[in-house]
Amino acid sequence: MAKQDRSVRTRQKVLEAAAEVFNRMGYQAATVSDIAVEAGTTKGAVYFHFKGKEDLAQAILRRQQQDTEAALVPQRVKLQEIADSGLVLAERLRTDSLVRASIRLSLDQQAGELDRGSAFRDWSRFNLEILQEAERRGELLPHVDPVAVAELFVGSFSGLQHMSQVLADYADLPQRVSVLLANVLPSIAVPPVLGALDYCAERGRLLIAASERAAGTPPDGPGTD
Amino acid sequence: MAKQDRSVRTRQKVLEAAAEVFNRMGYQAATVSDIAVEAGTTKGAVYFHFKGKEDLAQAILRRQQQDTEAALVPQRVKLQEIADSGLVLAERLRTDSLVRASIRLSLDQQAGELDRGSAFRDWSRFNLEILQEAERRGELLPHVDPVAVAELFVGSFSGLQHMSQVLADYADLPQRVSVLLANVLPSIAVPPVLGALDYCAERGRLLIAASERAAGTPPDGPGTD
Repeated sequence: MAKQDRSVRTRQKVLEAAAEVFNRMGYQAATVSDIAVEAGTTKGAVYFHFKGKEDLAQAILRRQQQDTEAALVPQRVKLQEIADSGLVLAERLRTDSLVRASIRLSLDQQAGELDRGSAFRDWSRFNLEILQEAERRGELLPHVDPVAVAELFVGSFSGLQHMSQVLADYADLPQRVSVLLANVLPSIAVPPVLGALDYCAERGRLLIAASERAAGTPPDGPGTD
Repeated sequence: MAKQDRSVRTRQKVLEAAAEVFNRMGYQAATVSDIAVEAGTTKGAVYFHFKGKEDLAQAILRRQQQDTEAALVPQRVKLQEIADSGLVLAERLRTDSLVRASIRLSLDQQAGELDRGSAFRDWSRFNLEILQEAERRGELLPHVDPVAVAELFVGSFSGLQHMSQVLADYADLPQRVSVLLANVLPSIAVPPVLGALDYCAERGRLLIAASERAAGTPPDGPGTD
């Protein structure tokens, strides 16, 4: 148990070191040696947990989705889950360096060998499943194309987070996502559903706090990936 | 006249070479020597037209706005100009390498010394002026916050163009921008204005073709910046 615990902690430390090194040097220039030095461990220890630099980047990329899903709880109104995922991810970006690294990696134009499309595709699929269930429940207006709207949210969010990073170091991101939701949801939700939706900028922070209380874990405890 | 002509052409050649070099190497790694070699000219010729690497990058950044504005004509319904600027820029990105370089530069995370916020701020100001005039003309719904909507369009467009670049080499960008407009405009326009707006994906291409016919210039003629 203690040994397994230590292994989980080392894996997490290596992941955080990789995030830091990718942030500082860019993906292309970074090496496994740089990451081992940053983590205060050996290259062997890095390779015990990860196949190499690309595997590390993919693990970081997966974190943006996993960390977000952890704070999401099923909602009576299905469309609320679209708002919640955007607001929770916005709050994670505002406060969590590993999630920031994940987003930076998926935008890094020099990271040629990575499949940078996977984050866009994974999030589009995530949104699409919610929208299709919302459609089955009669929550969507009849003209709505769930695929187009799923991808609209992903693309728009991606740009808003970048704008927020450049202009405000992410401080205004929850507000920007709230504005996106306020302007798009009326075009997709039937009126009674629209009236029931909560997309205020504070909601992400409140959902994360609630999920941490429920799990009884400290905010910076090791995650799984 | 001939001499001035040649000077304009050299300036344009240097600008295109810089775009190509920034695209290939990233902003940070690129040097004025690389750009001179790419342009088939001397470092002295580059410095005759530009103060240095940052000045070149700023000139490229300004192009995204100037090339777009060139194809825009005043519209009877002011809000149409918001749609037109997005659809024209989408079409420019699909077809013009200098405009692509401009957008890549404004997203380059390693280009630390550049003021990467200026593109976001310039486009927000551009949108805001249109939205404020639309508000004066009674085209906006009463609850609309022109500043928030101006920035929403900029941030969303920025992400949609990046998603389109990664997934489809820009081929589907006009369609993605059309979806953005179709889902946001109903939240900001009063019904009679909304009914008069055209935001189909083809519109950018048609506006550019019309402006080129009107100017009598070939599509790849030298621009000014």
